[in-house]
Amino acid sequence: DLPVSMASSPMVCIQDFENYAYNHLPKNFRDYFFSGAYSEQTLKENRVAFQRLRFRPRVLRDVSRVNTETTILGKKISFPICAAPTAIQRMAHPDGEKATAKALSDLGTCMTLSSWSTTNIEDVAQASAGGLRWFQLYVHSDREITVDLVRRAEAAGYQALAVTVDTPVPSKRYSNIRNRFTVLRYCKLENFSQRDQGVPSGIKGGEDSGLAAGVLKMIDPALDWERVTWLMSITHLPVVLKGILTGEDAREAVKRGVAAIWVSNHGGRQLDGVPATIEVLSEIVKAVDGKVEIYLDGGIRYGTDVLKALALGARAVFVGRPILYGLAYKGGDGVKQVMETLRDEFSTAMALSGCASLKDINPSLVVHQSHYWSHL
Amino acid sequence: DLPVSMASSPMVCIQDFENYAYNHLPKNFRDYFFSGAYSEQTLKENRVAFQRLRFRPRVLRDVSRVNTETTILGKKISFPICAAPTAIQRMAHPDGEKATAKALSDLGTCMTLSSWSTTNIEDVAQASAGGLRWFQLYVHSDREITVDLVRRAEAAGYQALAVTVDTPVPSKRYSNIRNRFTVLRYCKLENFSQRDQGVPSGIKGGEDSGLAAGVLKMIDPALDWERVTWLMSITHLPVVLKGILTGEDAREAVKRGVAAIWVSNHGGRQLDGVPATIEVLSEIVKAVDGKVEIYLDGGIRYGTDVLKALALGARAVFVGRPILYGLAYKGGDGVKQVMETLRDEFSTAMALSGCASLKDINPSLVVHQSHYWSHL
Amino acid sequence: DLPVSMASSPMVCIQDFENYAYNHLPKNFRDYFFSGAYSEQTLKENRVAFQRLRFRPRVLRDVSRVNTETTILGKKISFPICAAPTAIQRMAHPDGEKATAKALSDLGTCMTLSSWSTTNIEDVAQASAGGLRWFQLYVHSDREITVDLVRRAEAAGYQALAVTVDTPVPSKRYSNIRNRFTVLRYCKLENFSQRDQGVPSGIKGGEDSGLAAGVLKMIDPALDWERVTWLMSITHLPVVLKGILTGEDAREAVKRGVAAIWVSNHGGRQLDGVPATIEVLSEIVKAVDGKVEIYLDGGIRYGTDVLKALALGARAVFVGRPILYGLAYKGGDGVKQVMETLRDEFSTAMALSGCASLKDINPSLVVHQSHYWSHL
Amino acid sequence: DLPVSMASSPMVCIQDFENYAYNHLPKNFRDYFFSGAYSEQTLKENRVAFQRLRFRPRVLRDVSRVNTETTILGKKISFPICAAPTAIQRMAHPDGEKATAKALSDLGTCMTLSSWSTTNIEDVAQASAGGLRWFQLYVHSDREITVDLVRRAEAAGYQALAVTVDTPVPSKRYSNIRNRFTVLRYCKLENFSQRDQGVPSGIKGGEDSGLAAGVLKMIDPALDWERVTWLMSITHLPVVLKGILTGEDAREAVKRGVAAIWVSNHGGRQLDGVPATIEVLSEIVKAVDGKVEIYLDGGIRYGTDVLKALALGARAVFVGRPILYGLAYKGGDGVKQVMETLRDEFSTAMALSGCASLKDINPSLVVHQSHYWSHL
Ligand SMILES: Cc1cc2nc3c(=O)[nH]c(=O)nc-3n(C[C@H](O)[C@H](O)[C@H](O)COP(=O)(O)O)c2cc1C
Ligand SMILES: Cc1cc2nc3c(=O)[nH]c(=O)nc-3n(C[C@H](O)[C@H](O)[C@H](O)COP(=O)(O)O)c2cc1C
Ligand SMILES: Cc1cc2nc3c(=O)[nH]c(=O)nc-3n(C[C@H](O)[C@H](O)[C@H](O)COP(=O)(O)O)c2cc1C
Ligand SMILES: Cc1cc2nc3c(=O)[nH]c(=O)nc-3n(C[C@H](O)[C@H](O)[C@H](O)COP(=O)(O)O)c2cc1C
Repeated sequence: DLPVSMASSPMVCIQDFENYAYNHLPKNFRDYFFSGAYSEQTLKENRVAFQRLRFRPRVLRDVSRVNTETTILGKKISFPICAAPTAIQRMAHPDGEKATAKALSDLGTCMTLSSWSTTNIEDVAQASAGGLRWFQLYVHSDREITVDLVRRAEAAGYQALAVTVDTPVPSKRYSNIRNRFTVLRYCKLENFSQRDQGVPSGIKGGEDSGLAAGVLKMIDPALDWERVTWLMSITHLPVVLKGILTGEDAREAVKRGVAAIWVSNHGGRQLDGVPATIEVLSEIVKAVDGKVEIYLDGGIRYGTDVLKALALGARAVFVGRPILYGLAYKGGDGVKQVMETLRDEFSTAMALSGCASLKDINPSLVVHQSHYWSHL
Repeated sequence: DLPVSMASSPMVCIQDFENYAYNHLPKNFRDYFFSGAYSEQTLKENRVAFQRLRFRPRVLRDVSRVNTETTILGKKISFPICAAPTAIQRMAHPDGEKATAKALSDLGTCMTLSSWSTTNIEDVAQASAGGLRWFQLYVHSDREITVDLVRRAEAAGYQALAVTVDTPVPSKRYSNIRNRFTVLRYCKLENFSQRDQGVPSGIKGGEDSGLAAGVLKMIDPALDWERVTWLMSITHLPVVLKGILTGEDAREAVKRGVAAIWVSNHGGRQLDGVPATIEVLSEIVKAVDGKVEIYLDGGIRYGTDVLKALALGARAVFVGRPILYGLAYKGGDGVKQVMETLRDEFSTAMALSGCASLKDINPSLVVHQSHYWSHL
Repeated sequence: DLPVSMASSPMVCIQDFENYAYNHLPKNFRDYFFSGAYSEQTLKENRVAFQRLRFRPRVLRDVSRVNTETTILGKKISFPICAAPTAIQRMAHPDGEKATAKALSDLGTCMTLSSWSTTNIEDVAQASAGGLRWFQLYVHSDREITVDLVRRAEAAGYQALAVTVDTPVPSKRYSNIRNRFTVLRYCKLENFSQRDQGVPSGIKGGEDSGLAAGVLKMIDPALDWERVTWLMSITHLPVVLKGILTGEDAREAVKRGVAAIWVSNHGGRQLDGVPATIEVLSEIVKAVDGKVEIYLDGGIRYGTDVLKALALGARAVFVGRPILYGLAYKGGDGVKQVMETLRDEFSTAMALSGCASLKDINPSLVVHQSHYWSHL
Repeated sequence: DLPVSMASSPMVCIQDFENYAYNHLPKNFRDYFFSGAYSEQTLKENRVAFQRLRFRPRVLRDVSRVNTETTILGKKISFPICAAPTAIQRMAHPDGEKATAKALSDLGTCMTLSSWSTTNIEDVAQASAGGLRWFQLYVHSDREITVDLVRRAEAAGYQALAVTVDTPVPSKRYSNIRNRFTVLRYCKLENFSQRDQGVPSGIKGGEDSGLAAGVLKMIDPALDWERVTWLMSITHLPVVLKGILTGEDAREAVKRGVAAIWVSNHGGRQLDGVPATIEVLSEIVKAVDGKVEIYLDGGIRYGTDVLKALALGARAVFVGRPILYGLAYKGGDGVKQVMETLRDEFSTAMALSGCASLKDINPSLVVHQSHYWSHL
């Protein structure tokens, strides 16, 4: 082999963006982005688990043309890596959600907007006209708020609702608690700032941590399968459940008619001690048995991670923090660089494992490391 | 999700209390509290083993009302986390056992008083009138001493005897030996200080390590199943065996008619090299087959640990060192904060795993991490 | 046992040579030699995996005469450790490939010359007349270049073609990218410098990283089994496939009539996340079922590693970086010392495991470490 | 439990003696004692492997009288921990082997004298009259030397021959090689210094490393089962084979009529990569099927290690380096303290696991750590 560089930037891998963000963000912002729940075991597992998998690469296949295109819920994306919803992106960069949406749209992949965005639904849509956008929905105790969000997302051309089901209550994130977060003085939750329908006043631009707590408490802790059925009944948008971690719940979801399942542990930020998403994926794939699409997020930092997730049955993956690192580095340009880095690593990994298109990626491509030990 | 703080104290997790205690206690006190036996392998295992377990959380269940109440031996406790017996609590704070008993009673859970307490049986009872109290009994070679302790515990309203069976002889704790412990100059073993029935004089307020050794030697190394049967015959209090680590002994205990089994390795302070309690729990549960209640202590430091123990079959858990950290931090207030922290983490973990009450917690909630690997 | 020294050099094991190279090479040269792809997981695994294996040594066998001789593709070598192809050896020492070839020839074992050598095919042959030499071939998109390389290797007396199949595209090596490699200003790819047949001019002594990229891009990403068949049809030299990592591909290779299979992950420099070669070896051995010879490279740093590889079914092993460390230390002399160190460690390991000749080495000599645990 | 000290010395565990030796011995002596072969993997494994085992302690058994007595080859020892042979003990302390023999004899357990001792066979016997002594035999290429050593051991009252079978050739110990050992200038191999029968002159008090190499080369690399049979035919002493690591060789040994098998990897100093002795023990026990006694050495540093070895089937254990640490600390007194420490830790561990005598120790007492995981 040969020493060679095609670098057009000092940032060559996601770790570089992470380091940049770590070193340049104010401590309390950084803590909010980087932290996980409780002892942060799952946060670490999300990364370590990928390293327990091994590729079984096939050689001597024509990979002169590697095609990374696919579809999610019937819509084309140019590569199977999308943006997971993360709240308050303007903490990372003033351009926030707009910049993210625009970058993703330019690259031809999907952006998921958080309910707790610091740019409103409509403005984000405008900033990325023509791009594929999904809306992440927190179901509120107050049905009116929920309905309103859904209607606005529909109107603004979002193509799916990702309903987060792993957050019935706020979790224990120690670094946040230590910092007594005051960020909401600077960033407003814009989806709630222009209306007035029973939302506590603080939420219209919440100003301190007490108010933030108030917002969080509006999430419906009684959300259950019935209410999901109700939600599906009031919208024509496909409903994706984000946060499923057992085969039992995946089966129930399919039975209830959801459009897709998004395997997630909220980036290790909700229940600590749950498995890494890449480890639980196979259980979900088996339970779903091909009936709906399955996505995965959590710990994706290399193109090889994407390849592993797809080999084990994910249709596409989503990244949370890497988007924030990109934003922190250079706004929309940073997001683009992050996504391009992942895309290029992914297509290189495809070529090196003998896959010219996504349908060449199959379960025989990946085994657990212990696979080899048990044959000795 | 959202950055939010509800912190009312700089202490947000048990580690904070541990750090405080570590940094503020005199070295020899600290060593006594923190140390384990021999190479301290089991001490470490008690923690690490919890991290090898993974939750299988269920979503979309109504958790708007999380109820942590349960009973132990028929008595109500407001959450399933109680205080394990630890000797000489006045080394941690002048208020010692009284403060602990009062804090636990206020929170509506159970305090276990050590035989080697630095406050006597009666005073502790008075300090926590109405609270649930158990008495931890070391059976003495001298039957009279044993009978006396039992009678006083009965008279003072203790509701059960936790008979410690893992301490027929003192173990090898190197840091204690190195420090040539002199604590008993300052703290008296008050259960022995006001009476005079064959107890060597030193014990009535032992003054140096030689005397402490004397006390230890009074524990009956010949204690066997027959003497346990005898003990049960002389008291109406339910007898709980503390320190069972095999299915064989658990079965024998049930056969002998004990009221409950307390899985414990004495916090890694007796035989080094025994399994973490959370790992041995399933063996005991299987052997006991629902016939008596099972408790567990050892390494509980997060609410998620409690949830794991209950999922695997424990009725309730007990904490040893965390109580001492709380005492060291702020006496009774510190103990309260420690217990509240664990309780809140626990109820949050319940909600996040889809459990609204303790009966929703079942074995399918927890698997060993290797569970996922064997399916790849 | 006794304290004893037979040391004739301060360099007693491969680690010493590695440290020397690490400390004395310019950073960008060093990075090129030491680096792996992506997160360098496979690079590390190549070493760690050897440590997971355990010997089952037999005692009381006459090992007064240990014979390390064997053959590869019918040619005798004095011990089963050969040189893997590494590009641009003049970066390590001005004497480069010539010195390596001469040292290996003197020791009676095999040198594999890289396509991207900084000494041309003919000069290397001359420097090691009488020695066993193989030529590592990168198949080019331009057939003419490929044919030309093959003809020259044949003419110069190389005895086999090792066709590298794990490099259809350049991989992601971050440290190289960071260093924006300019080495080719100093070292020319001499196999391309004296001819002119469609090779982009830069390749005749490429001068910067852009050109190096150009060279890399000439490797044929469409190389498939058909073209391998074509290649075998145009040469009388045996064809060895270097870079096979699955049983499926090994079987196909045998079916296609290749002379041997070289298990390699390119020293962790191509697809990251593939298994360590020593772990995948058994799968290949089983698939090949004795029909062709199997070699292995990757992470060999001790004579005991060689013994493990042979026990699991490799005919011989190849070393890549150790050769470069030897060169960096003292040119040809350094290479010799490296190879002698490995040879002596290997023959000592043979004696200590009861093997007087290579045919005494068999699969019962090695088990995975977990073998012992599963019997407890 | 209670803080208590019975310490009569600042040295409370073997680690303390090890630290002392490490800090007080000249570097080249220290390196000789502490080092292992090649990458020292087995050296580390010998320790780590013990930590992978878990006790299943039984409670409520009368342990008021713990009896550690047993026999080896029919001779009584007061506890099952003996001294393994280590060469050149006068490097550790001027009193060397005499001090060791005397200390062991005083404690009522067995001393094994190395062939390469720095005190001769007869003087050691005299220093420990009445004590149980074994002689470790290196079989020499020159039969006369071998016969002479055997006759002298017989005459001096040694009770068994431990024939070392893992040293047909010297291994690769890097730190020794680096130090170009010159110790033999100061310490003579006294078993060879007063005679003159074909022994190269250097051996009569070898003076430099070249001579030491000469001594090592006298060990017979052709030693095989036939010569062992011959050896047994010329002596009435029971022959113990030291260094067996496979069931196959153990079975052969039994068939050949050896008196006992000593499982050893020479403290990680011969073939690196072999299993820890405690892990291979079960394989040997199964193969031997109760027909002869089995001993074990390697990595014993705690009384709990002894208990594990006995539970898995060893009759007794031997310690190598701990003896040297004791010598380095305080000559014979140091050895005594080391042995007493191990003995006390062992008998405490017996009591804590419910064993009043050695026959209460059985295989159900110990499992591999993964035992618990596979039941989850
Ligand atoms: C700072 C931050 C904020 C987040 N906010 C939300 C949110 O508002 N809604 C949601 O469903 N998930 C949220 N998530 C979870 C992400 O959607 C995603 O599940 C997770 O970040 C994936 O893991 P990764 O960060 O390792 O890629 C957030 C994650 C982070 C790190
Ligand atoms: C300082 C200290 C003193 C203890 N004293 C007693 C005691 O007197 N009686 C007893 O049965 N257990 C005693 N224990 C053991 C505890 O009851 C309990 O089993 C153990 O602390 C649980 O582990 P944890 O500290 O990790 O929670 C003591 C433990 C500690 C740390
Ligand atoms: C600096 C360097 C350059 C290499 N160049 C080539 C090459 O030109 N062709 C090739 O087939 N393999 C090449 N390899 C891979 C080696 O042939 C071999 O597979 C690998 O180095 C073995 O691993 P080891 O370095 O751990 O021994 C190279 C490896 C290194 C480290
Ligand atoms: C410094 C040293 C010298 C040794 N010399 C001999 C020897 O002369 N003969 C022998 O059979 N074993 C010898 N051994 C090996 C020991 O008998 C024993 O197998 C080993 O030390 C046990 O491991 P441990 O040191 O971890 O207890 C030696 C070991 C050491 C550490």
